[in-house]
Amino acid sequence: MELKPGERLDDLHIQGYQIIQDKKGFCFGIDAVLLAHFARIQPGEKSLDLGTGTGIIPLLMAGHHGQTQYDGLEIQEKYAKLARRSVAHNGLEDRIQIHQGDIKKASRFFRKSSYDLITCNPPYMKPGKGLVNPGSEKAIARHEILVGLEDIIRTAAQLVKVAGSLYMVHRPQRLTEIISVCHHYKMEVKGLRFVQPKQDGKPNLVLIEAVRHGKPMVTVEPTLVVYDDKGKYTDEINQIYGYNKKEK
Amino acid sequence: MELKPGERLDDLHIQGYQIIQDKKGFCFGIDAVLLAHFARIQPGEKSLDLGTGTGIIPLLMAGHHGQTQYDGLEIQEKYAKLARRSVAHNGLEDRIQIHQGDIKKASRFFRKSSYDLITCNPPYMKPGKGLVNPGSEKAIARHEILVGLEDIIRTAAQLVKVAGSLYMVHRPQRLTEIISVCHHYKMEVKGLRFVQPKQDGKPNLVLIEAVRHGKPMVTVEPTLVVYDDKGKYTDEINQIYGYNKKEK
Repeated sequence: MELKPGERLDDLHIQGYQIIQDKKGFCFGIDAVLLAHFARIQPGEKSLDLGTGTGIIPLLMAGHHGQTQYDGLEIQEKYAKLARRSVAHNGLEDRIQIHQGDIKKASRFFRKSSYDLITCNPPYMKPGKGLVNPGSEKAIARHEILVGLEDIIRTAAQLVKVAGSLYMVHRPQRLTEIISVCHHYKMEVKGLRFVQPKQDGKPNLVLIEAVRHGKPMVTVEPTLVVYDDKGKYTDEINQIYGYNKKEK
Repeated sequence: MELKPGERLDDLHIQGYQIIQDKKGFCFGIDAVLLAHFARIQPGEKSLDLGTGTGIIPLLMAGHHGQTQYDGLEIQEKYAKLARRSVAHNGLEDRIQIHQGDIKKASRFFRKSSYDLITCNPPYMKPGKGLVNPGSEKAIARHEILVGLEDIIRTAAQLVKVAGSLYMVHRPQRLTEIISVCHHYKMEVKGLRFVQPKQDGKPNLVLIEAVRHGKPMVTVEPTLVVYDDKGKYTDEINQIYGYNKKEK
C-alpha cells in the first residue's frame, strides 16, 4: 500500500491495524476512540457508522470485536475513498463496507430496522459563528452544515432494530437537546458517561446510548478522567487506547 | 429550648445554627447539604423550599447567604412543627416561614411567578416495590406517595419568576425523565452536577438547575466525589459541610 503525498499511516494499537489519514484533513481524536470503546457489539451483529469519515470507528470496533460486521456511511468522496483504502490495507473488505451518501437519505438505501446498533461521532457545533470556510472538509466534520442532530437521531431510529442502540459522542452542552430529540423519536437515552479532561475540570464530552423503544431509566457510568495530576493519561485511557506499558 | 423525648439537636456548622430532628424520623443526609450548597441565591432574593421536612434546606441557605428570605412548605404536620421550632431556636422567624400544605395545591396559596428560586429535595423512588409501610413518615419522604416528580416541576414552573431557577437533587436514573418533564413545563435544565461516592464508582446523586423559559444549553459541572481513596471525605465535601480541620 502506497501513501499519497500529504498522507500519514497511524497505528491503531489493535490487531496491528493501521489507518490512512490526510495530515491537513480531519484526523481522528480521543472522541472516536472513546465512542468505539463505549459501543457494545456482540459476535454476529451488524453495526452502521453514520458519518464515518476515515472509517476510524468501524476499524477500531472490528479490531476489538471478532465476527462483527460494519457499514460506514460518509458523504464526502475524499473521506469515503480514504476509508476504503484503510479497510483494504487491513484486509477487512469482508467485514467493513464503506458507502458514500447522505445521512438524511440513508433510510432510502439501507434497510429499515436492520442494524443491531448504530454509531455516530457527529459534528458538535451548530453552523454559524466563527466559521472561516463553511464549505471546507473540516468544517463539515465539525459543524452541523450538511447534517444536524435531529437528522442523525431520526435516521438512527429508522435503521436500528427495536431494542437496538444508537451510540453517540457529543458535547455535554447539547445533552438536554439530545435527550429531548431522542425521546421524540422513541430512542430513549439509557446510558451516559461523561468525560473530564481533569479530575477537577468540567466534562467536555459525553458518551450516550439511546435504545429504540427503551423505557425511561438511565444509567450514568463513572465519570472518565483523561489526564492525571501529572498531566499523563490515566490508566483507563491508556487501556482504552491499547497502549501497553512500553509505549506509555 | 427543650428537646422532647426521642429528639436530637445537630450542629449545622454555619453561624452556630442547630436543627432539631426526631431520631427515629427522617433525618437530613448529604443530599440536602449538597442541594443547599448548589442553589444560588442573591441578597434580597426569596426562595421557596418544596417538601422542606425539618427545614434543613432553608436553615442551611439562610446560614450561608445573608439578607435572603425563605418559605418552606411541608405536608406532614409533625415535620412542619419541628421545622418551626428549629427556625425559632435559631432566631430566624423573620427570614424563614414554614407553611403546612400540599405541593400539588401550592399554586393556590402562594403567589404565582413570585419566587426568585425554588429548591426541592424530593422523594426519589416511585411508590410500590419493597415498601413496608406506605403511610409511614419516612416512606412519604422517600417514595412518591403524596407527590410525584411532575407535581413538583409543574408547581415550581407556576411559582418561580421567569428566568428564575428550580434547584433539585435526585437519582441519576431519573435524569431523562426529569429533563423531559422540565422541558414540557418550560423549565429548561441548564445545570447538572453528578455526585459519585467514589472516584471509580457510578454517581448516585445528581444536582439539577432548571431555568424557567431558559434556552436549551446545559452546563455540566465537574463530578463531585464524596470519599477519597482512604474512605475519608474529600476536601470539597469537608468544605461544603463547613467542617474545619479540627473537626475532620
